[in-house]
Amino acid sequence: MLINTKKNTCFGNSLFFFVYQAISLRLCLVISFGLIIAGCAGNKTEVPVTSTDTTTTKGATDPLPSWNDGQTKTAITQFVERVTKAGGADFIAEKDRIATFDNDGTLWSEQPLYFQFIFMLDRVKAMAPQHPEWKTKEPYKTLLKGDVKAVLAGGEKTLGPLLLATHTGMTESQFKSTVKDWISNATHPTKKKKYTDLVFQPMLELLTYLRSNGFKTFIVSGGEISFMRAWAEDVYGIPPYQVIGTEFKLKYDVKNDTAVVERLPAINHVDDGPGKPVGIQWNIGMKPIFAAGNSDGDYEMLRYVTNGTGPRMGIIVHHTDSTREWSYDRKSSIGKLERGLDDAAKYGWVLIDMQKDWKIIYPFEKK
Amino acid sequence: MLINTKKNTCFGNSLFFFVYQAISLRLCLVISFGLIIAGCAGNKTEVPVTSTDTTTTKGATDPLPSWNDGQTKTAITQFVERVTKAGGADFIAEKDRIATFDNDGTLWSEQPLYFQFIFMLDRVKAMAPQHPEWKTKEPYKTLLKGDVKAVLAGGEKTLGPLLLATHTGMTESQFKSTVKDWISNATHPTKKKKYTDLVFQPMLELLTYLRSNGFKTFIVSGGEISFMRAWAEDVYGIPPYQVIGTEFKLKYDVKNDTAVVERLPAINHVDDGPGKPVGIQWNIGMKPIFAAGNSDGDYEMLRYVTNGTGPRMGIIVHHTDSTREWSYDRKSSIGKLERGLDDAAKYGWVLIDMQKDWKIIYPFEKK
Repeated sequence: MLINTKKNTCFGNSLFFFVYQAISLRLCLVISFGLIIAGCAGNKTEVPVTSTDTTTTKGATDPLPSWNDGQTKTAITQFVERVTKAGGADFIAEKDRIATFDNDGTLWSEQPLYFQFIFMLDRVKAMAPQHPEWKTKEPYKTLLKGDVKAVLAGGEKTLGPLLLATHTGMTESQFKSTVKDWISNATHPTKKKKYTDLVFQPMLELLTYLRSNGFKTFIVSGGEISFMRAWAEDVYGIPPYQVIGTEFKLKYDVKNDTAVVERLPAINHVDDGPGKPVGIQWNIGMKPIFAAGNSDGDYEMLRYVTNGTGPRMGIIVHHTDSTREWSYDRKSSIGKLERGLDDAAKYGWVLIDMQKDWKIIYPFEKK
Repeated sequence: MLINTKKNTCFGNSLFFFVYQAISLRLCLVISFGLIIAGCAGNKTEVPVTSTDTTTTKGATDPLPSWNDGQTKTAITQFVERVTKAGGADFIAEKDRIATFDNDGTLWSEQPLYFQFIFMLDRVKAMAPQHPEWKTKEPYKTLLKGDVKAVLAGGEKTLGPLLLATHTGMTESQFKSTVKDWISNATHPTKKKKYTDLVFQPMLELLTYLRSNGFKTFIVSGGEISFMRAWAEDVYGIPPYQVIGTEFKLKYDVKNDTAVVERLPAINHVDDGPGKPVGIQWNIGMKPIFAAGNSDGDYEMLRYVTNGTGPRMGIIVHHTDSTREWSYDRKSSIGKLERGLDDAAKYGWVLIDMQKDWKIIYPFEKK
């Protein structure tokens, strides 16, 4: 009785976010899902190497070669120079140089829908032979018939069971293997590239640039934490213990004399919106001085990180490039950016115009 | 409905642990609490500097000078040499060298009761002037009269409100300031030293030795996470984002245009016993290869970390020194060690005999 004052909020937030996500996915899926279903049968090839390094030597060359010169690039480099200038008024000790990055839409693409959702749908198909009962059980039945639109339109009632069936009920090491296998093989429905090819080259450079200036770089994402950890170190140079995300409840167990951690069918933390400052406090325990996001799910993180004494920087990746990537903001069902655009000037957040500020979008465009 | 399968476990574990802790405290308090009440009025002096460094240069000198030569010391140094020998059969890449340490009883003393509990009792006294209603309200009334024994004998019903009243209902930054102020001033009731003077010199050397060999060192403790983070970097050289502990629920809020994270009166995670492998998975996301503990609250962490392929090491600090520290194990109400002693040989865990293996216990004994 004493310590359960907030009992009912334990899952209330989770439900809210999943219902919200489900509803906001609808419009997008009406247009794009045929493509996804057709395009998700990947063939086995080598994992793309888009890894950043973790060296700490400063080069004399441009640390951000894929960024066009201009106000945005200058704002970033001037901020880093200010906080690293020994003896300067804005110097920040290395141990306090914490930078947090959203993942979907900030470090890699997120259209036509979150890549983790595509993983989820692929997993239902892959798992179906072991679940003959799904042929007659909803929402699996409808999904396996190919009517993804109907499944996603069903909101929490249909998406919830799919998420739990594909993301829980196994050990952490089993889930990691499954994600590694999928990410090594699956291809994006329209870009026809591996998902890890669809990371943003300018952001890889920014991660390396910050690290080479003594920053610790963290991911703070609404995506599921173990899904990201399975490949984030290879792709971004960010180790598992610097990845924060939405978490399931877990349980320690010993099975056949083997100690395991099992993934339970219940959400522990939704790392989105106001959940991001909470995830930052639980996992980092310090307020970062730099944050990067792209959607209103990052609003509270940007507000939290850029509010306080001393130099602070918030940047927003604005998806403005319908030719090389996608163009979307206020009206989008995925990665909606409205409050961020309205308040960027007020809070001094730097808007990155992808079309104007970035020479290339993806690593495979490098010449 | 979908994602609340485990709803009732959300606080069940917490209650169990607090009831357990409360009951096990009784015996100890009967004997020792008079001393504590008398001894907790600290006077302002300088914070003791017992900090370890984080340099990565290997020295030719003994890295563990406070450890007596013998099987225990050799087991540790041989393990480190095995996993760091490039080209060796047991070589482990630097990124996979993760070591986890319990705090209470492993890195600092924990008698006559957990130092965080002494903080809690001190806080009730310090906060009393702002809470005139406590004069007539239990359990505050009894505690403020000086009958600590009765309060702790009341178990969860009395300890729960005290914990919540002193640890929640403020922002994270306010709580951090409070802990920093207390830890800088309070003194141990019998040792008459600052609590941060009561860290184990041999373990400080072990932390530094592991870090100088490419390990990342984490705390994984049943203690409250923000309580430890307030001083762990100064004392152990372990940054906040490498401290894992019991967590309260948190809430993001903006008050007077200031973005804050508030501490709510509800437990989110109890990082003890089977909660330790869960805390490790959530916060580190990899299985460590080295773990150190001292009580049965560390049993599952030791079991989890030392179970698997490749070289792994588990060590247990056995409190055997009634002269220089305290001597206790199977029958102790604080830091009970029974399963660990029974199974150490079976699982290859190295027992550290404090009396025999350590030249000195505390940094202030250095000559």
